[in-house]
Amino acid sequence: MSLSGSLGARLVNGSTRLLVIIGHPIAQVHAPEVWSGVLRHHGINMICIPAHVLPVDLDTFFVGARQIRNLAGLIVTIPHKPAVVHHVDALTDRAARVRSVNFVTISEDGRWTGDITDGFGCVENMRAGGGDPRGARALLIGAGGVGSAIAFALAERGVAELAIYDTDLARADDVATRVAATGTPCRVGSPDPTGFGVVVNASPSGMKPDDPLPLDPDKLEAGTIVADVIVERTRLIEIAAARGCRVFVGSGMMVHQFAAQAAQLGLGQYDFSPATVARLAKDIQG
Amino acid sequence: MSLSGSLGARLVNGSTRLLVIIGHPIAQVHAPEVWSGVLRHHGINMICIPAHVLPVDLDTFFVGARQIRNLAGLIVTIPHKPAVVHHVDALTDRAARVRSVNFVTISEDGRWTGDITDGFGCVENMRAGGGDPRGARALLIGAGGVGSAIAFALAERGVAELAIYDTDLARADDVATRVAATGTPCRVGSPDPTGFGVVVNASPSGMKPDDPLPLDPDKLEAGTIVADVIVERTRLIEIAAARGCRVFVGSGMMVHQFAAQAAQLGLGQYDFSPATVARLAKDIQG
Repeated sequence: MSLSGSLGARLVNGSTRLLVIIGHPIAQVHAPEVWSGVLRHHGINMICIPAHVLPVDLDTFFVGARQIRNLAGLIVTIPHKPAVVHHVDALTDRAARVRSVNFVTISEDGRWTGDITDGFGCVENMRAGGGDPRGARALLIGAGGVGSAIAFALAERGVAELAIYDTDLARADDVATRVAATGTPCRVGSPDPTGFGVVVNASPSGMKPDDPLPLDPDKLEAGTIVADVIVERTRLIEIAAARGCRVFVGSGMMVHQFAAQAAQLGLGQYDFSPATVARLAKDIQG
Repeated sequence: MSLSGSLGARLVNGSTRLLVIIGHPIAQVHAPEVWSGVLRHHGINMICIPAHVLPVDLDTFFVGARQIRNLAGLIVTIPHKPAVVHHVDALTDRAARVRSVNFVTISEDGRWTGDITDGFGCVENMRAGGGDPRGARALLIGAGGVGSAIAFALAERGVAELAIYDTDLARADDVATRVAATGTPCRVGSPDPTGFGVVVNASPSGMKPDDPLPLDPDKLEAGTIVADVIVERTRLIEIAAARGCRVFVGSGMMVHQFAAQAAQLGLGQYDFSPATVARLAKDIQG
């Protein structure tokens, strides 16, 4: 590993290692600016860059990417997470359970390992903010890529019960069945939050300002833990906060993944704590 | 093309286009810091990053690289220049003549074009410094990748005659034969500079401080144009300067390639002049 604390005015040099985020589309991703900013802050000679790869080209992309010797890892975003399972040499237990990969690290001997940290980030964000889901009845809305990662992470954290709702019932049923197989009571439910201590929106509802709400907010009780995977503060979060819920925004879920990912990159000695990453991200993004 | 003048504190973001330099080894290359610095200076949302690719992996690397939609181009360095001829869809005339590529651009419709600018940079550097080789008797020492590019560029510029010396006589003979076929008198010669108005060292002699000199410096006459492809100021250049020769250092050859390459990347409206690039490179490299 080539690390240098003396890049000086240079952004990058011949020894720079690459952390590549792949997705389609790609322009919207925040990883290049946040990761590159934190890496630079620490004087680590690694940069995070975007690679726009279409789904049809993914297999071929991986064949070529294997040849880049200074590639440190890959961040994987929509829509590639499920497919990347088939392009690594090993999966972490949670990635194998979720059947999805959002982070790939490459060992010195060229072994590629896929992990999924979305669910971990969501649960850690709640825990750190005093909203530990352990023992709670949890409702998850959205059983897509991020939703299924969160389902398994909530189960791993020890929720008493998990209900999963998705407009695609078959998808909800598939994830619920697989989570139940791990031992946590899990079933397909409705979007009604009544009686749940933890409610997580992992559906795309809220990405656009005029999206319908993913659930009926009048049924949210004060004290309920309400988390949203959407990075910006959504209308759901605003209403939940106004009703006295304990709210968790998607940006927190993002910053809570950095330390785990940095450790996998061999950068465990540097400060990638959520507070540091959030502060630097704010500085970088203005 | 996605350009942005508002990167601000960001080094890179989701819309950043990539200019990738491939080589083996790669740590020694200056392109990432100089290119990235100039691009950032102009507020162009493109970054130059190194990719360490072994010769045995080159074919496979290209298969994957074709799938990166935000790839703007490739800079090609040792030892890949001759092989890349086979990985592009078209060659410029000079790249076809030299049979070597040091720069690849990708059009909007995905067509890859290979060019070779080493020789052009060498000749432009001499011209700009009052050492136009046109009409001169020229001696070229070294008929490898960069040497052959310079041979053709000297011929294109209109030298009266070109002699080529290489410790590998067959290599010198091959290049001399091919240059002669373009109509410029060209033959294999000795390293004796007597009687030549232009002498170019394109051999690796001088990369290390205790390397033997590529020619007998006592035979250099005052006023002779002496150029070296080695980026740093070599012992040959020091001695030639002391003898009253007009000397041209490799770093000048490098900066004289930027404007032509930038134009091919569609960045012709920005200032990539040798003076600007040299000034920024000095700032960046400290």
